[in-house]
Amino acid sequence: MDKINVIKVGGAVVEDSTSLNELINQFATMPGYKVLVHGGGRSATKIAAQLGFESQMIGGRRITDENMLQVVTMVYGGLVNKRIVAALQAKGVNAVGLTGADMDIIRSHKREPKMVTMDDGTKHLVDFGFVGDVDYANGNRLAALIKPTNENEAIIPVVAPLTHDGKGNILNTNADTMAATVAKALTEEFEVTLTYCFEKSGVMADADDDDSVIPSINTQSYAQLKEDGIVSGGMIPKLDNAFESLDAGVKRVVITHFMDILATQGTVIEK
Amino acid sequence: MDKINVIKVGGAVVEDSTSLNELINQFATMPGYKVLVHGGGRSATKIAAQLGFESQMIGGRRITDENMLQVVTMVYGGLVNKRIVAALQAKGVNAVGLTGADMDIIRSHKREPKMVTMDDGTKHLVDFGFVGDVDYANGNRLAALIKPTNENEAIIPVVAPLTHDGKGNILNTNADTMAATVAKALTEEFEVTLTYCFEKSGVMADADDDDSVIPSINTQSYAQLKEDGIVSGGMIPKLDNAFESLDAGVKRVVITHFMDILATQGTVIEK
Repeated sequence: MDKINVIKVGGAVVEDSTSLNELINQFATMPGYKVLVHGGGRSATKIAAQLGFESQMIGGRRITDENMLQVVTMVYGGLVNKRIVAALQAKGVNAVGLTGADMDIIRSHKREPKMVTMDDGTKHLVDFGFVGDVDYANGNRLAALIKPTNENEAIIPVVAPLTHDGKGNILNTNADTMAATVAKALTEEFEVTLTYCFEKSGVMADADDDDSVIPSINTQSYAQLKEDGIVSGGMIPKLDNAFESLDAGVKRVVITHFMDILATQGTVIEK
Repeated sequence: MDKINVIKVGGAVVEDSTSLNELINQFATMPGYKVLVHGGGRSATKIAAQLGFESQMIGGRRITDENMLQVVTMVYGGLVNKRIVAALQAKGVNAVGLTGADMDIIRSHKREPKMVTMDDGTKHLVDFGFVGDVDYANGNRLAALIKPTNENEAIIPVVAPLTHDGKGNILNTNADTMAATVAKALTEEFEVTLTYCFEKSGVMADADDDDSVIPSINTQSYAQLKEDGIVSGGMIPKLDNAFESLDAGVKRVVITHFMDILATQGTVIEK
């Protein structure tokens, strides 16, 4: 079975032109089949603020009202995605930018309002707005682009964190979830490595100590890390996505620094 | 040879949800191979204004400074393109949104400053900014999506008026030129009809009289129409694109109302 690397890059990396260029250089020279999935939340927040829209966040998650949906559609699907595609083309990488709507690769439904426990312990019913929870991904169509069965050239997908509901609506989907969805969808055709790249060196035992990377996390140690409050906030959905990916047949999941997209270091997630 | 329809839709059509829905309904039910090319200038102007950027226009053409490049990348590549793709998917049309950077389908170079004659007759050297004049289009790659030679499903491209220079830069390219570029690039594989759809019924002899559609224009009558001032402004580059398309082997070019994408009426352009 052919191997493929699904690289998720987010956080501060895609918003800083220096780190983005470094990431792109590395991705371009990475051998073999590959897919890039990107975030862009900070750019969206910035453009939203410039437009006079307020970014409402609850428990580290953005509320996507109609204005914010417009902003993320522009910023993720247009600004961030097309800049990455053009930069990769300049390196000779035959990239195509995709959202879940393009070729119907990832379909979702609008999230129902959910009970959320706040930092103060109180519970509230929260409507996250135009947020899409994934229903299915069309791995065959993605694989047909990446590894064509005819004389067509191989294409490298660059995936923005947007999905659609099949009724004409674009929905905002968490970029880590998007990467896990793409990785899982490709397991039928490939042996998949999913690498979450960001500005830190991995999951840290001590947020203030760069040398405290936890080399591996399994289901048991994950429970303990959560209980001890070492793993919290946005790292929890990332790790949940990592474990789900392993359960669904993804071969290897690593959380590492964006300068290490070959995942030679960082935190390895194991069942 | 298979037939294909390249439909350009612009002007007010894509910015009004009622007219856009009508256009999408028609495009979805149109039989055979097809490509949609869209504009979005008015949305870009509106978003730019909301962001506090001023849209500078010279002779009906937008000056694309760095801020405006950011806006058109977001609005054309993200907002307008993805809305159309999601709407087409809802009608069962397997659309993919593309800019010229995606799969390197249309490459351009930044326009050199040009001498432009102003309305008052004076001439000025104008730098149009980040505007891309097309160098080449990869018709084979487009055709391979539209009419795959293997068991892959056929894909319908939805093209945004953005190109790239191969050095990592997105450039703003006139949507009429984009449509002509796509039409010309497909002549090797298809018998191409290029239809420019907008909010009027065709090229009008009298702008104020909806019944004054000129049924056909050829090279000779075009010269006369320009001399008489009947054809002016943005219609001139549109017609120039139409004649260039015919010269390059496009079979039929029609300028018509967006409710007539089968081009049964409107103005036929002939050599």
